[in-house]
Amino acid sequence: MRLTVIGIGLIGGSLALTLKQKGFVDHVIGVDNNSLHQTQALELGIVDEIMTLEEAIASSDLIAITTPVNIAEILLPTILEKIDKQVVFDVGSTKESIVKIANAHSKKGRFVPTHPMWGTEFSGPEAAQQDAFKEKATVICNKEQIDQDALKLVEQVYEQLGMHILYMDATKHDIHVAYVSHISHITSFALANTVLEKEKESDAIFELASGGFESTVRLAKSNAAMWVPIFMQNKENVLDVLNEHISQLKKFKSCLEKENFDYLSDLIENANGIKRILK
Amino acid sequence: MRLTVIGIGLIGGSLALTLKQKGFVDHVIGVDNNSLHQTQALELGIVDEIMTLEEAIASSDLIAITTPVNIAEILLPTILEKIDKQVVFDVGSTKESIVKIANAHSKKGRFVPTHPMWGTEFSGPEAAQQDAFKEKATVICNKEQIDQDALKLVEQVYEQLGMHILYMDATKHDIHVAYVSHISHITSFALANTVLEKEKESDAIFELASGGFESTVRLAKSNAAMWVPIFMQNKENVLDVLNEHISQLKKFKSCLEKENFDYLSDLIENANGIKRILK
Repeated sequence: MRLTVIGIGLIGGSLALTLKQKGFVDHVIGVDNNSLHQTQALELGIVDEIMTLEEAIASSDLIAITTPVNIAEILLPTILEKIDKQVVFDVGSTKESIVKIANAHSKKGRFVPTHPMWGTEFSGPEAAQQDAFKEKATVICNKEQIDQDALKLVEQVYEQLGMHILYMDATKHDIHVAYVSHISHITSFALANTVLEKEKESDAIFELASGGFESTVRLAKSNAAMWVPIFMQNKENVLDVLNEHISQLKKFKSCLEKENFDYLSDLIENANGIKRILK
Repeated sequence: MRLTVIGIGLIGGSLALTLKQKGFVDHVIGVDNNSLHQTQALELGIVDEIMTLEEAIASSDLIAITTPVNIAEILLPTILEKIDKQVVFDVGSTKESIVKIANAHSKKGRFVPTHPMWGTEFSGPEAAQQDAFKEKATVICNKEQIDQDALKLVEQVYEQLGMHILYMDATKHDIHVAYVSHISHITSFALANTVLEKEKESDAIFELASGGFESTVRLAKSNAAMWVPIFMQNKENVLDVLNEHISQLKKFKSCLEKENFDYLSDLIENANGIKRILK
């Protein structure tokens, strides 16, 4: 199996490393417009060779689009145009928009819209990890539109990665991820900006910052090139959740201002209900 | 060395276990008004015996107050009243208020106000961990008011725990922790409430929730009995930070509403500056 990875970063790189280690693919072709990333990917053994998009498509069986979501949308029609029997999948954090683009194309059956729910706050080929993804969930959207052989191949990819597959409507997917991923990133970015804005003595933060701070702010290291297009594409859902989140924060603010500590206690006990969801 | 731990939970329990393992204390007396916690602490080998507060003070060298901060404030004058040459320290997340209470007492020199910057979202004796605290920071406040022998003993406690000690004015401490700890808890509680409020299909959250969500929401499991008194005591500082945080979130909201993606990118790149602080 010959795999092309378009965009050799955290996700594309980890995918390539893991699938090759498992023996599921024997040759990896990298496509990337960043020459430093090309060099790093070759040096790190993530890809076997670098090709142009055209060459790569022509000489591979499976094509993974692992670029930021705005780039994926631009590339998809071009890729579908050029393929014959190859299978194409993406890994983006928004699905409604790309599914719409695929649906407008006659070869939509060759495209599998997916979203593996794994990542770190780091990016680029150097962030790629072998044996990533394991035991996490991955989503495949709108599977009834996909050719049987294409669906089966991408299911095998995720089985090789050790992920459990959830099938979901693209619209529903985008609502869910607004809650479980996108809002966490916004709160983390905003929290980092809060601290950077108000707390000038950064040495004191550095010394005092303990596990709690680190875990809530960790995501604020995530990069803008990836996240701006996600927020853009999932704008309506993210705004819904963000408005709700701001009003939840205002309840805490009001409790403190009014010294209504019984209600503050109720709010915290309600939040403890997250234990039912997170083990 | 005989240690009394008042409030045998996550912090008190971890402190007792670790100091005994290191051989720094050879006998641990537990004081707790929760009979389940008494039994658990004995069974888990965290304490050697349970005593009343009076008995415990009389038969120990070192007294750790590891209750919620509101209880610590109530207990401190009583404890100072009853001690002779013993050393007393607390571990609370707010310091200005308890330092004020200590300062009103003639034996204030025997009390060392401290705040070890370690914790988890769990509570009770079963949450206690041996070898906790290691390589984290701990704060000792207003050290110039403390008797030399008392200060030295508590410094030795934290050296045994492998913590690095920062000396800080209590007022300054409370401002810093509003940024590096208290606000993270509020955002986490509010985020949990946001998700629980809006997202009714909790199975979908459970399946999709990946590392990012878990790390930002983890603190929302923290208990109200501990956190309400902290927010109460540090109300002014927490409100300052919370107001700033809400206005930072509103910037993200405004960017999305206006589709001002350049500014959104700037906000994220600014947040990335947290890399300077968090490794």
